[in-house]
Amino acid sequence: MFTPKDNNYASKVKESFDRQKFMKLINARLFKVEPGFCEIHIPYDISLTQQHSFFHAGIVGTVADNSAGYAAFSLMDKQSSILTVEFKLNLISPADGELLIGRSQVFKYGKTLTICRSDVFVVKDGIEKLCAAAQSTLIELQNRKDQ
Amino acid sequence: MFTPKDNNYASKVKESFDRQKFMKLINARLFKVEPGFCEIHIPYDISLTQQHSFFHAGIVGTVADNSAGYAAFSLMDKQSSILTVEFKLNLISPADGELLIGRSQVFKYGKTLTICRSDVFVVKDGIEKLCAAAQSTLIELQNRKDQ
Amino acid sequence: MFTPKDNNYASKVKESFDRQKFMKLINARLFKVEPGFCEIHIPYDISLTQQHSFFHAGIVGTVADNSAGYAAFSLMDKQSSILTVEFKLNLISPADGELLIGRSQVFKYGKTLTICRSDVFVVKDGIEKLCAAAQSTLIELQNRKDQ
Amino acid sequence: MFTPKDNNYASKVKESFDRQKFMKLINARLFKVEPGFCEIHIPYDISLTQQHSFFHAGIVGTVADNSAGYAAFSLMDKQSSILTVEFKLNLISPADGELLIGRSQVFKYGKTLTICRSDVFVVKDGIEKLCAAAQSTLIELQNRKDQ
Repeated sequence: MFTPKDNNYASKVKESFDRQKFMKLINARLFKVEPGFCEIHIPYDISLTQQHSFFHAGIVGTVADNSAGYAAFSLMDKQSSILTVEFKLNLISPADGELLIGRSQVFKYGKTLTICRSDVFVVKDGIEKLCAAAQSTLIELQNRKDQ
Repeated sequence: MFTPKDNNYASKVKESFDRQKFMKLINARLFKVEPGFCEIHIPYDISLTQQHSFFHAGIVGTVADNSAGYAAFSLMDKQSSILTVEFKLNLISPADGELLIGRSQVFKYGKTLTICRSDVFVVKDGIEKLCAAAQSTLIELQNRKDQ
Repeated sequence: MFTPKDNNYASKVKESFDRQKFMKLINARLFKVEPGFCEIHIPYDISLTQQHSFFHAGIVGTVADNSAGYAAFSLMDKQSSILTVEFKLNLISPADGELLIGRSQVFKYGKTLTICRSDVFVVKDGIEKLCAAAQSTLIELQNRKDQ
Repeated sequence: MFTPKDNNYASKVKESFDRQKFMKLINARLFKVEPGFCEIHIPYDISLTQQHSFFHAGIVGTVADNSAGYAAFSLMDKQSSILTVEFKLNLISPADGELLIGRSQVFKYGKTLTICRSDVFVVKDGIEKLCAAAQSTLIELQNRKDQ
């Protein structure tokens, strides 16, 4: 549906992701990148929890925002970098499970601004359940390579 | 301005905060709690960063959401627990500095729903700079003590 | 996908819509109601425009919010009424055309809170173009019939 | 606090407002413009109502968004035009009263993007009551004069 401006979009995204030390801290994995789409997984760990031992809302927000950012980044020119302008996240169900999955899809890719929608699922006993939904705005900074 | 329903609001908030293991992972500190207000600090650490070595947007979102949650929780009945319904975060400037500060203020305390506004600052060389702003909706779950 | 609690959901929605005098002022038409879905149309009129003679953002927000509200309302008990808690709207392209269409789909129907996503299109020379996208939160007020 | 780039900011805003025919339809009045601030009033009329005869949420959103837009526009270069990128609106209380007031303040004025916060009040029997709160993002389009 979308044609990335950079044929090496997948490795570009992977390299940027690998430079985010926070992803390493929370053991996040870049599971899939397609043009305009990104999926990130975070396995459960007690260090990522809120007071009821579910994934913390900050982790849920992180997986939504970061997958949205890389979904958008996958389409951009290799000389561009990306910033999140804003995101809005609905927390729908407790993030109670063994794995958190963020899936983001570009909804509108614009010259300057890109809109993404993100769905966050928690997997419990192997069954996926929707736990959050986001809509976000990202900006492409041209001629400012992400490195 | 606001009268908390529980005189022990400050210790109630502290106990809940201390049970959030994610706060420990990122070394977040509950700096101040007043009726309808909460301030959380997160010192810089390389493990909390995105690809340009600034605080990750996920950390910025966490400090906004968590301070909003505890600002609202400070006003609630001691038998109530709290959930974030949704939050909307604008990332305004790179979170480049040695300390991240989230300050949240209840804007409207309602019977069921509470609205907070959050300002996030980054301190660099001792100078505070606004880096993000949020508006969030929280729900009070009565007779479901947070524990 | 969704089963409405009230078999007469379509007439219930129509009656409520018809009581909204603002819908009459802007000549909005309830085009389609299905369980968890609603589509509203607003034909172009110069009285609905902003400074460049396109549909005003207030009209775009109205068609998003109102179709979301009725998408959610279609699923609710006949003794319930509905309120919008909040909505977030991205304005994606100028609303330049002869007809504005708001389509909203319930994304999560909960006991108290419901989440909808809305897409707004503008039709120009017969061709639909995406012009806005929203995500909204609605609350069901039980035993408070909408009348 | 803010210094407008155009000394004639107030007349620039007024001229743009007067070209918005939708403002005329709903009888909105530009009440006050200061650098980075705008206040708009809408007197009650039955034609502006939802099913319970209160101001329609679409009108509440309009007064929030439009006052935010003009608060931001007041600071911009006279050769620039402005677009709302997105806004997020919490509806806090029923807009039940004889006058609706939207007050918006620029929170961050940036080179490209500006963030505003808006408070909406309804006046009943002469007493102001908060009924909605918004946070919005606006973009300055340079060298594209609003006309």
